[in-house]
Amino acid sequence: MNILITAGGTREDIDAVRGITNYATGRLGSLIADEFAKNNAIITYVCCEDSDLPNAKVDVTLVRSAQELLETVETLMKNKSFDCVIHSMAVSDYTPKAVMTLDGKPLGQNKKISSDNSEIMIYLKQTPKIIGRIKELQPKTLLVGFKLLLDVAEDELLEAAWALMDKNSCDFVLANDLKHIKGDMHKGILIDTEGIAGRAKTKQEIAEMIYKAIKERFEKL
Amino acid sequence: MNILITAGGTREDIDAVRGITNYATGRLGSLIADEFAKNNAIITYVCCEDSDLPNAKVDVTLVRSAQELLETVETLMKNKSFDCVIHSMAVSDYTPKAVMTLDGKPLGQNKKISSDNSEIMIYLKQTPKIIGRIKELQPKTLLVGFKLLLDVAEDELLEAAWALMDKNSCDFVLANDLKHIKGDMHKGILIDTEGIAGRAKTKQEIAEMIYKAIKERFEKL
Repeated sequence: MNILITAGGTREDIDAVRGITNYATGRLGSLIADEFAKNNAIITYVCCEDSDLPNAKVDVTLVRSAQELLETVETLMKNKSFDCVIHSMAVSDYTPKAVMTLDGKPLGQNKKISSDNSEIMIYLKQTPKIIGRIKELQPKTLLVGFKLLLDVAEDELLEAAWALMDKNSCDFVLANDLKHIKGDMHKGILIDTEGIAGRAKTKQEIAEMIYKAIKERFEKL
Repeated sequence: MNILITAGGTREDIDAVRGITNYATGRLGSLIADEFAKNNAIITYVCCEDSDLPNAKVDVTLVRSAQELLETVETLMKNKSFDCVIHSMAVSDYTPKAVMTLDGKPLGQNKKISSDNSEIMIYLKQTPKIIGRIKELQPKTLLVGFKLLLDVAEDELLEAAWALMDKNSCDFVLANDLKHIKGDMHKGILIDTEGIAGRAKTKQEIAEMIYKAIKERFEKL
């Protein structure tokens, strides 16, 4: 079984020394990779420099920004067929387009932005949606998406997870709420097109739940 | 000898899942700490969660934002007398004040900002200048500041380093240019109020150079 896993967070540069970072550690992705590797899957792992890495031997490609992730995923998926793509990376939704003073004077993003202004503005534009490309590239791959919200009712979380699934033709979505994540404690609800496929209370349980769901789906194919 | 070292980068939250990060690894600070510890100094070490830590046993306080760093440094310096403060932390110059759509609709920073807008704006305000507080808190401490610029002539770099020294009553400033930093290769020029006190080509050499300069200054006191 060939699996592509994305994990951790992305970084969008503001200038040469700072950027916008998504705070994901990549730990959940690393545990998912280990769970699949334990069951003899071959893992291609895409993450950023700071991410936790799996213990298992995996083929790692480092990326930085959402744009780099998109290009990497496209290259990988054009060159190799994956049975399953687990897209757990917390991808920045926005990337800096311009940095300026409040009266509109541009501050050079290629250099280090001076600290002399009392206030500055950053304009950001949407990054490309990577999850939407996956089934376009390989319609037959099984796609696992992730929906993270903060402090919402379970109904609202599931609603958002189903919307993500519909929009991107995911086979599964792991729905989770930041208020229920603390270290390795991590509540997650796995949904498929039929409804709720399972619930987990720790990162390790989520990894096992996703592996089991993918394995069962394969056995039915 | 009691030494306070700050190292690594800060994080300024944009919302619950992302923030503005300064890319420093904290490696230089950790080597400086090890160099002082090897020579029997007692080290108080302030850094963020992701920073490289010294090998030596040091008393670590974790901080996140520039504001937290300021409060931590003030508390530490009100409670203990330091012979020397080495402020190598890459502190964010700006922190998010408001996030909004281009037509001015506020996007809740306490929640996770939705990805539905094609463009957004972040307003940032200056963070407090920690380096300026150090001699106010302990006028007799020896203060080592750091000036990092990108791709400038040496004259311009030294000019900026002297300006930092003047403004904040530093005893030493380590002037460095990002274009001369690559892994452990790290060109640095140490200046004091008299002129150039030394030059180094690696992070380890910088650590040794700073230790030696502080030791010599102490012997003269």
